[in-house]
Amino acid sequence: MSHQKSFNASFESISPAEFFYRNRQMAGFGNPTQAVYSTVRELVENSLDSCEDAQTYPILDIEIKNVGPDTITVTVSDNGTGVPPEQVPLAFGRVLYGSKYSQQQKRGTFGLGVTMAILYGQITTDSPVIIHSKTYKSKGHLYKIFVDVKNNRPLVEYEEEHHRDETGTTVTIKLKGDLKRSQERIIEYLRLSTVSTPHAKLTLRIDEEIQLDLGGWSDTLPSPIRPSKPHPRSVDMEVLRRLVQNNEKRSLDDFLCSSFQKIGPKTSTRFLRFMNLNPNCIVSELNRDELSQLANALRKYDGFERPDSKCLSIIGKNELLNAIKSVFNVKIAEYASHGVSEWQGNPFVIEAVVAMGDDFPRSDIPTLYRFANRVPLLYDSTDGVLTRTLKRVNWSRYGINKSEPVAIFLHLCSSKIPFKAAGKQSLASVSEIEQAAYQIIKELGRKLGKINSRYRRSARESKKMREFSKSFRQIARFSAALADIDEVPSVDNLVKKLFEVEPDE
Amino acid sequence: MSHQKSFNASFESISPAEFFYRNRQMAGFGNPTQAVYSTVRELVENSLDSCEDAQTYPILDIEIKNVGPDTITVTVSDNGTGVPPEQVPLAFGRVLYGSKYSQQQKRGTFGLGVTMAILYGQITTDSPVIIHSKTYKSKGHLYKIFVDVKNNRPLVEYEEEHHRDETGTTVTIKLKGDLKRSQERIIEYLRLSTVSTPHAKLTLRIDEEIQLDLGGWSDTLPSPIRPSKPHPRSVDMEVLRRLVQNNEKRSLDDFLCSSFQKIGPKTSTRFLRFMNLNPNCIVSELNRDELSQLANALRKYDGFERPDSKCLSIIGKNELLNAIKSVFNVKIAEYASHGVSEWQGNPFVIEAVVAMGDDFPRSDIPTLYRFANRVPLLYDSTDGVLTRTLKRVNWSRYGINKSEPVAIFLHLCSSKIPFKAAGKQSLASVSEIEQAAYQIIKELGRKLGKINSRYRRSARESKKMREFSKSFRQIARFSAALADIDEVPSVDNLVKKLFEVEPDE
Repeated sequence: MSHQKSFNASFESISPAEFFYRNRQMAGFGNPTQAVYSTVRELVENSLDSCEDAQTYPILDIEIKNVGPDTITVTVSDNGTGVPPEQVPLAFGRVLYGSKYSQQQKRGTFGLGVTMAILYGQITTDSPVIIHSKTYKSKGHLYKIFVDVKNNRPLVEYEEEHHRDETGTTVTIKLKGDLKRSQERIIEYLRLSTVSTPHAKLTLRIDEEIQLDLGGWSDTLPSPIRPSKPHPRSVDMEVLRRLVQNNEKRSLDDFLCSSFQKIGPKTSTRFLRFMNLNPNCIVSELNRDELSQLANALRKYDGFERPDSKCLSIIGKNELLNAIKSVFNVKIAEYASHGVSEWQGNPFVIEAVVAMGDDFPRSDIPTLYRFANRVPLLYDSTDGVLTRTLKRVNWSRYGINKSEPVAIFLHLCSSKIPFKAAGKQSLASVSEIEQAAYQIIKELGRKLGKINSRYRRSARESKKMREFSKSFRQIARFSAALADIDEVPSVDNLVKKLFEVEPDE
Repeated sequence: MSHQKSFNASFESISPAEFFYRNRQMAGFGNPTQAVYSTVRELVENSLDSCEDAQTYPILDIEIKNVGPDTITVTVSDNGTGVPPEQVPLAFGRVLYGSKYSQQQKRGTFGLGVTMAILYGQITTDSPVIIHSKTYKSKGHLYKIFVDVKNNRPLVEYEEEHHRDETGTTVTIKLKGDLKRSQERIIEYLRLSTVSTPHAKLTLRIDEEIQLDLGGWSDTLPSPIRPSKPHPRSVDMEVLRRLVQNNEKRSLDDFLCSSFQKIGPKTSTRFLRFMNLNPNCIVSELNRDELSQLANALRKYDGFERPDSKCLSIIGKNELLNAIKSVFNVKIAEYASHGVSEWQGNPFVIEAVVAMGDDFPRSDIPTLYRFANRVPLLYDSTDGVLTRTLKRVNWSRYGINKSEPVAIFLHLCSSKIPFKAAGKQSLASVSEIEQAAYQIIKELGRKLGKINSRYRRSARESKKMREFSKSFRQIARFSAALADIDEVPSVDNLVKKLFEVEPDE
């Protein structure tokens, strides 16, 4: 009945730039509102990362100008390391090219975001990105660059040496977008960025008018982070094969000690004895099956310590509490942290704050502010793991109700964040992270519950104290009259002393 | 205060295979449960697309076997076109390579999914994918292929001519995963696949035992779809520049008529007069500014007809209703469709069914079954545009409450589906699609409301009828007694006739 058609499909390979050009909604450029937001966000994150590299206090100027119907320019200027002139074209004009692929906490990780913003500007306004950058070695260079989408490579339109006073980078992108509808989110994003990067100062100007000038809540620079070697539990066949290729001539024992964190001579010996492998055999001589067994064993052996957290940069208790109090009107705030834990061998820490104050919406459950590697996540909250976890907690038990506006700030740091999509807005389901988030949220709930009941108790106590002191004063007055004394003695100290006793209840 | 560190980051380019290997959760391979589900799904979709190409009734065998601790093989066999032997390595072993990049409705569109499944199998079990395929031209070839992640290219492990009776493809992937936890979703996915592809027959075996054997609800093949030329409103600078490159020597008039749908000589003349452009100028002589103006004008000019829908394949009223009734226990079902509409020049149609029946969960709002280009979407429902739209409707107004289990089946067909992530689970916000979905859902709500009130009315009517016939029978009995007749005459016809009158109310 069916007639067999010949196979006439033509096959074709597309570049990653082409893929994300066709599916730009996956990278956060799906509509004119989101496009403006994502452009600002990608540039700001790049700048903050660059300042972190320079170990300097970030000072960022964000400038948005209306330059035509639905057309704007976004300029972000930083005092970071700058980009070496010879790297500028590829770093900005090529997708999946970057300096951020090492095992350490970074805001950007994909080598994707800024190039997507440039690409979006290019296809909507046919304008090149303008980059002005200076490193400590160069005098400053100005570039205008287009992206060759089909071949995923930069097309340099213009280039010259151009003086710049300080090191750093200024990037200008012209794009079509809906600034009006994205403005509120952009401001929210920048406000929250000063919470998660409290040593940074951010200024936002729209059409020359200052809209926001915030930050610098902390004068401590985060301690510099160091990329880590892979943890043995993060190993799959792909990783192992690559490591072996780079260490062909080493003995197995030597290979393990030099390639992984948490494996020293002792651990290595114990592990190899357990595996029944010869420590002196040369790794390149292991056959495929043996390598596969080794990968499995590395992942399953429970004698390795947890991955270390030198590659992570938490905000820290004082810094986070202080930043939240600087940005929001907060009555009470409590901090907790969880970890170092790991997921698939990647270390992670969750730190969180529960805060009460009139700036937060009133609701049955706390308002959640999500951060991943110091980046505020504003879109797609409902589907993420963190929001789901928040909803699993029975909040009424901790005395939360609509009369008490409560917020939770949750910061996940990891050498790898399991984002659901390249637009980096919500987290995929990873049971270890879910578990840890649940623990810490419950801990904050308990803390809040205690404070709430202390509050209620202390309200009761002070009422009692008022009544007692009233009676005591009366007694004092009567006694004074009986004793024929003019001056009634003060009872305040007596009452206070009586109430200093910790109540049993 | 801050000491300027030198810029010491090392730059690096990664292949798209490497990108998705590192961020596999973006492609639906984030955890062992989802990995099994996505493997089945990607293979099934590939097979169905291939059968569509062959214009044949799809017969798919899906076989899952437990072969070790947490280790399974997934085999999907189809009767589609088969893949030409020389194309097998790249089609399966390379990310972003495929036959599906044309402007038409397809299940798969990224050239990503199956290679991701192969990659996942490879890194978790170190096994190659096994492919056995035959086209109408070849005798059958067997391949074993690994993916070279770093370079995004296939590594052929084994290859030989190997007889296969019929055209089609069989793919086997060995992977680590959690079959137990994914099994229910897989079955749900396959059941719903027979709703959206009602002419397909699907069989699922797990460890040799048949778990599901469904489909073939329709014996009409969908009419073959044809790729379309781009619609002028879908043009951005990138598209226009490419079209011009391929048509360098054409006159502007000729270029417009031959490159776009919905532009014939008349429309072209009108458009060019409106734009004040010379129809005879050669396109390659237009400068950058003129091209940019042309792109803008093509997008904004309102004299073009809507994009055509020859490239779309809706399920169709009878087919969809029939399929739903075959899979679910349904009392009432109503169909509606909306479109052809467009988003950014991409045509789309939404068709939908509202159904009542005991198989659906009882809830205040209907249960939503989402489909995009005939693919059931099971994950990430809460954050998608369609779910949000469903919740915007005031369902109580249409008489929906917990006592009436209601479901809505919503199928979006488009030459381009704005998926949020490469895992293809939920849709990004596109206002045109949101708007259309809202319209059609409300229309279904009204239909349901009418049926509900008709139901309630008819319940009232039949009660009335019962009471009337009771009285009439009594009258008949008494009259018969009075008239001294033994046989009481039947009043059924009389009552029935009286109630045939349409009630006024």
